[in-house]
Amino acid sequence: MNNLSEDRYFDPAHRDLARQLYEPIKDLPLICPHGHVDPAMLAAMHYEYGTPVDLLIIPDHYIFRMLYSQGIALEALGIPRKDGTAVESDHRKIWQTFAENWHLFRGTPTGIWLRDELADVFGISEKLTADSAQSIYDQIAEKLAQPEFQPRRLFERFNIEVLATTDHATSTLKYHQDLKDSGWTGRVIPTFRPDALVNLDTDGWRENIQRLSEVSGIDVHDYRSFISALEQRRAFFKQMGATATDHAARSAYTERLSDVEANTIFQSALKGESLKGESSARADATRFRGHMLIEMARMSSEDGLVMQLHIGSYRNHNPQILERFGRDMGADIPIASEFTRGLVPLLDAFGNQAGLNIILFTLDEAAYSRELAPLAGHYPALKLGPPWWFFDSLYGMRRFFETVVETAGLYNPAGFNDDTRAYPSIAARHDVWRRASADWVASLLRRSIIDREDAEAMMHDLAYGLAKSAYKL
Amino acid sequence: MNNLSEDRYFDPAHRDLARQLYEPIKDLPLICPHGHVDPAMLAAMHYEYGTPVDLLIIPDHYIFRMLYSQGIALEALGIPRKDGTAVESDHRKIWQTFAENWHLFRGTPTGIWLRDELADVFGISEKLTADSAQSIYDQIAEKLAQPEFQPRRLFERFNIEVLATTDHATSTLKYHQDLKDSGWTGRVIPTFRPDALVNLDTDGWRENIQRLSEVSGIDVHDYRSFISALEQRRAFFKQMGATATDHAARSAYTERLSDVEANTIFQSALKGESLKGESSARADATRFRGHMLIEMARMSSEDGLVMQLHIGSYRNHNPQILERFGRDMGADIPIASEFTRGLVPLLDAFGNQAGLNIILFTLDEAAYSRELAPLAGHYPALKLGPPWWFFDSLYGMRRFFETVVETAGLYNPAGFNDDTRAYPSIAARHDVWRRASADWVASLLRRSIIDREDAEAMMHDLAYGLAKSAYKL
Amino acid sequence: MNNLSEDRYFDPAHRDLARQLYEPIKDLPLICPHGHVDPAMLAAMHYEYGTPVDLLIIPDHYIFRMLYSQGIALEALGIPRKDGTAVESDHRKIWQTFAENWHLFRGTPTGIWLRDELADVFGISEKLTADSAQSIYDQIAEKLAQPEFQPRRLFERFNIEVLATTDHATSTLKYHQDLKDSGWTGRVIPTFRPDALVNLDTDGWRENIQRLSEVSGIDVHDYRSFISALEQRRAFFKQMGATATDHAARSAYTERLSDVEANTIFQSALKGESLKGESSARADATRFRGHMLIEMARMSSEDGLVMQLHIGSYRNHNPQILERFGRDMGADIPIASEFTRGLVPLLDAFGNQAGLNIILFTLDEAAYSRELAPLAGHYPALKLGPPWWFFDSLYGMRRFFETVVETAGLYNPAGFNDDTRAYPSIAARHDVWRRASADWVASLLRRSIIDREDAEAMMHDLAYGLAKSAYKL
Repeated sequence: MNNLSEDRYFDPAHRDLARQLYEPIKDLPLICPHGHVDPAMLAAMHYEYGTPVDLLIIPDHYIFRMLYSQGIALEALGIPRKDGTAVESDHRKIWQTFAENWHLFRGTPTGIWLRDELADVFGISEKLTADSAQSIYDQIAEKLAQPEFQPRRLFERFNIEVLATTDHATSTLKYHQDLKDSGWTGRVIPTFRPDALVNLDTDGWRENIQRLSEVSGIDVHDYRSFISALEQRRAFFKQMGATATDHAARSAYTERLSDVEANTIFQSALKGESLKGESSARADATRFRGHMLIEMARMSSEDGLVMQLHIGSYRNHNPQILERFGRDMGADIPIASEFTRGLVPLLDAFGNQAGLNIILFTLDEAAYSRELAPLAGHYPALKLGPPWWFFDSLYGMRRFFETVVETAGLYNPAGFNDDTRAYPSIAARHDVWRRASADWVASLLRRSIIDREDAEAMMHDLAYGLAKSAYKL
Repeated sequence: MNNLSEDRYFDPAHRDLARQLYEPIKDLPLICPHGHVDPAMLAAMHYEYGTPVDLLIIPDHYIFRMLYSQGIALEALGIPRKDGTAVESDHRKIWQTFAENWHLFRGTPTGIWLRDELADVFGISEKLTADSAQSIYDQIAEKLAQPEFQPRRLFERFNIEVLATTDHATSTLKYHQDLKDSGWTGRVIPTFRPDALVNLDTDGWRENIQRLSEVSGIDVHDYRSFISALEQRRAFFKQMGATATDHAARSAYTERLSDVEANTIFQSALKGESLKGESSARADATRFRGHMLIEMARMSSEDGLVMQLHIGSYRNHNPQILERFGRDMGADIPIASEFTRGLVPLLDAFGNQAGLNIILFTLDEAAYSRELAPLAGHYPALKLGPPWWFFDSLYGMRRFFETVVETAGLYNPAGFNDDTRAYPSIAARHDVWRRASADWVASLLRRSIIDREDAEAMMHDLAYGLAKSAYKL
Repeated sequence: MNNLSEDRYFDPAHRDLARQLYEPIKDLPLICPHGHVDPAMLAAMHYEYGTPVDLLIIPDHYIFRMLYSQGIALEALGIPRKDGTAVESDHRKIWQTFAENWHLFRGTPTGIWLRDELADVFGISEKLTADSAQSIYDQIAEKLAQPEFQPRRLFERFNIEVLATTDHATSTLKYHQDLKDSGWTGRVIPTFRPDALVNLDTDGWRENIQRLSEVSGIDVHDYRSFISALEQRRAFFKQMGATATDHAARSAYTERLSDVEANTIFQSALKGESLKGESSARADATRFRGHMLIEMARMSSEDGLVMQLHIGSYRNHNPQILERFGRDMGADIPIASEFTRGLVPLLDAFGNQAGLNIILFTLDEAAYSRELAPLAGHYPALKLGPPWWFFDSLYGMRRFFETVVETAGLYNPAGFNDDTRAYPSIAARHDVWRRASADWVASLLRRSIIDREDAEAMMHDLAYGLAKSAYKL
């Protein structure tokens, strides 16, 4: 079946219309303003992908979480253990296991991305099955060894106009510097992510602060020097091409602390104290994080960096997986999220500032129509990120369009971003969005909600213009 | 494009069916049991609309909130400031700004209503663009000056059977009396809204109580006289034609206080005390409001007035907008709402009373299938209002139908109301509902969920019967 | 209209495809792993159904709640009162009332089930109306008297492969034993439901514990003997054919208590103490229930019984109905539900255990995409029950498919169960699921999300394989 239908994902009832809307925008350059591609991959003169399993399974928690949910041990999939215990190292065997369980991905975005990627990037026309597994493995491996599959060549082939990575606030951005120095013209920019500094309860927080002092050249010994060091880093990132920052928080709670309060909490954390007991320290961390979100908005209002806010993931829900394999292992689970009350202090301070872009992401779809669209449909500073994580899917996109746009319009959403670390899937992900967009816009057009002229303009904005503008690219 | 399609909003896959269902009900009289039309408009022998901007933009927070969200200052749209600072007074310039940003309303109900209204009410066949803006302005202005565009003529042209206004409980209903006295036969009735008396934390509450004493002729000095005065006002409203009351509350929390407790809180508020501190006063206000909702249900169970309950808006979310421009400026944001637990005391007291109609509205669509449809599908006294505010849209209606009717049936919902203060849009709003109804009923019919006979009966009920019966009109 | 369309519930836009997918699976045996059929009905050599009202109205709270919501007293529908007050006993009159209000069920699953059942089980081709009511009553009554309508004959006619009942943990399973002894080969198995023992605030809890001592032969006098007695009962149920347990809880809160704490709470309840006051006793009951859910998971991890968890019903919401008519009278209302945090202790202990099946059910659809699909898409022990109660409907199923499968895949859901006590409706309920499945799978196929081979496999799994496997049947 890997002769992919030209009209895939379109409702056949308006196939022709959708195709007409999709055709003019399908080859527009890709704007990739948020994702987790490793800049080292693009900085390398010759990058070694390793095996198909190294490329497609071991780094992709979308894939191995599903296999794990069906009782397949992560060790059997080659996921490295923190304690160094040996795991399955026969990648052909892992690939075979994957192929034999490929039915688990029927109807999932992971299934769609990989199928489209195998066909469009690797030119594989067979369906992945137990029988075809090894042949497909060989074909992928063969392709990966070819010069035209090197990351920069794929970047060009995908027609990426700009790709933003996500980088620790303490990063020296060495690979970004290497990229600049290499003379290659692909635009790869960093994104400033200070979570590990701003969340006092991060593992190794004091080491992170130490590192911040080192890279910023500012001795971080109190709240004031902490703020200065963060400002120094933001300036550095901006100079290196960054246009945005990124923040993840379990909740959208914000609170303005006085400098004295902020300093007291900061100093206490610096000393490793939790004098007031465990739960009070947690409360302090929450308040400090809420305060720092406002501070980050303040800095964005000054330096113009777009502020991304990813809300609502209960990270490392499965302690056994965390202990054995570490973070980002498919065990982050969403929770109900509240924005209307939580953001009051932040929005009171900076919500009315035109030119400031704060982009909100949620894992609680109930908030789309209830809170996010009304908020973004009022505050000049707010925009809405595309459907995130589990909802970056055909039906997830449809629900986003249907619940957000009637209230927020098309111009408060921030277009698409692929949010991926699975580099070769980037084109497939954008294509799914563009097809989903065409399908939705076609449904508006055929019901005479909009006219043809509007439809065409909306397609261009969805595929290209919104992301470029929201991220100031 | 303003040659509007006869079949707009229908899924073309069942266009013929939808048209057949729509045709017999499209010209039924309009039942308008809830809205915010100013009765003075209809009482006036000759009403001056002002400019197209006075009519269509300045009073419509649906429109200016969207422009504001994109960085256009409210001052630039002619919205008057509380402090009297001059704002843009060139209405042609404001209209031009609006037209240049008309793309913001693509796919929104505001866009649909205005487009349909321009075509159907004003007979304008051009699309609103930067180029056509001034010509359209002229055409609207010209029409507004014609006698057939006077409010009563539009009332007749729209074929409104009854229109309810929303009136402060302390209103003398002067304009309603004028209307009665005028001999005009259009049925315009008041609705009793006591929020500003019942919510102790309302700005100017004590002045409102003072006013209540004056208009009721009852010296309101304690809880008992407060209740008597409210009863007096309800009787007056009823005598003036009211069939319903209206209540807005942030949450559906209800609680039965003893008369002593109620009186203590009331007296304390009357004295302007907040002896127990700010947050305790807030808690008292919440409890008092929760108690008064039960009292209002009690009065409804006695005088037969339908009780509307609008739940879940966080009013005046943006303090800067509140301070500069006042209330109802597009900065009211929904919050998550809970009905199942909150309504227990009220429903225990009055939920089983057949003949009592309590109509619930929500801004939290997650509550449709989870709480509201099951509650309304059980309690004789409960009915569900149509999709409200942000959800009074094509997809909002579809979600309402799909999540409510399977559990609550079609006869616990209360039909449609347009909830508008944008008078000339009334017909367009009802038409959107009628078309959305036809589209949904057609989809049930073509899947053989219902038969033709059922479908036709449902259409009549949706367009006319349900609202008339739920509001006792 | 009771000449039911062969293609009912399919979107006509893909009617042929849906029919092709439905055809091969429509006659597969029915797997009924969860429901409330009375085993006495099947154990009886000759079962007396009583009148059509005894069969179809009096036991069915889906039906009488809707009539009640429109102001028809339960007494008028023949629902027996707890105090023995006489209620309507003229079943023809009750049936007439029902028929005259049949329009209330337009577009509801109740309406669909009954219509399909009248046509397919009773061979009635007329539509239920005021005019046809008595004739239909006669036809049903006539059929019920025929040998081929005896429960075992219907079981065979419906092609039920296995039917699980739901039984109190203290049941002697006498009827199941009778069934075994009868030599009839129909597979009817019990399900272990210990709610009335595990929820300390159950009415008559101490009598239930007394009964537990009697049937288990273990003197339950402390927490340890309580656990032993429960284990004894589970072993007995398992030996009688049970493959599953069932647990209902208002919330998914779990907490591990120490044995000492658990014993203290248990002993206190046994003594009827609520020394620490009412609200503290409630808190204790909640904590104990949360602890026992973990204990039940522990036992399931040892004895292999599948654990069903039904979360989120606020039982007996209407105290007047409870007092007059008792439990399960259509007055149970859903509440917002939280799983991500609540299940942490349970999942930390047993979530990673492959082979353990814990099946979650929700009444809060917002949790589908936000919590349940991500949880089930990660934890080996978790599966998702089908849309439950109010959501066991055409649109409810569609929402389940669309919000669950993209994240959890098709193999973490547990297929369908009919959850009914309305025995003759079983076939109709499975047919609705099978048609809804075909309709959804057809929509994936025509959009090229899956291929034909996948579609056919998914149909078989949805109709048969998933339930059989999830319930270890």
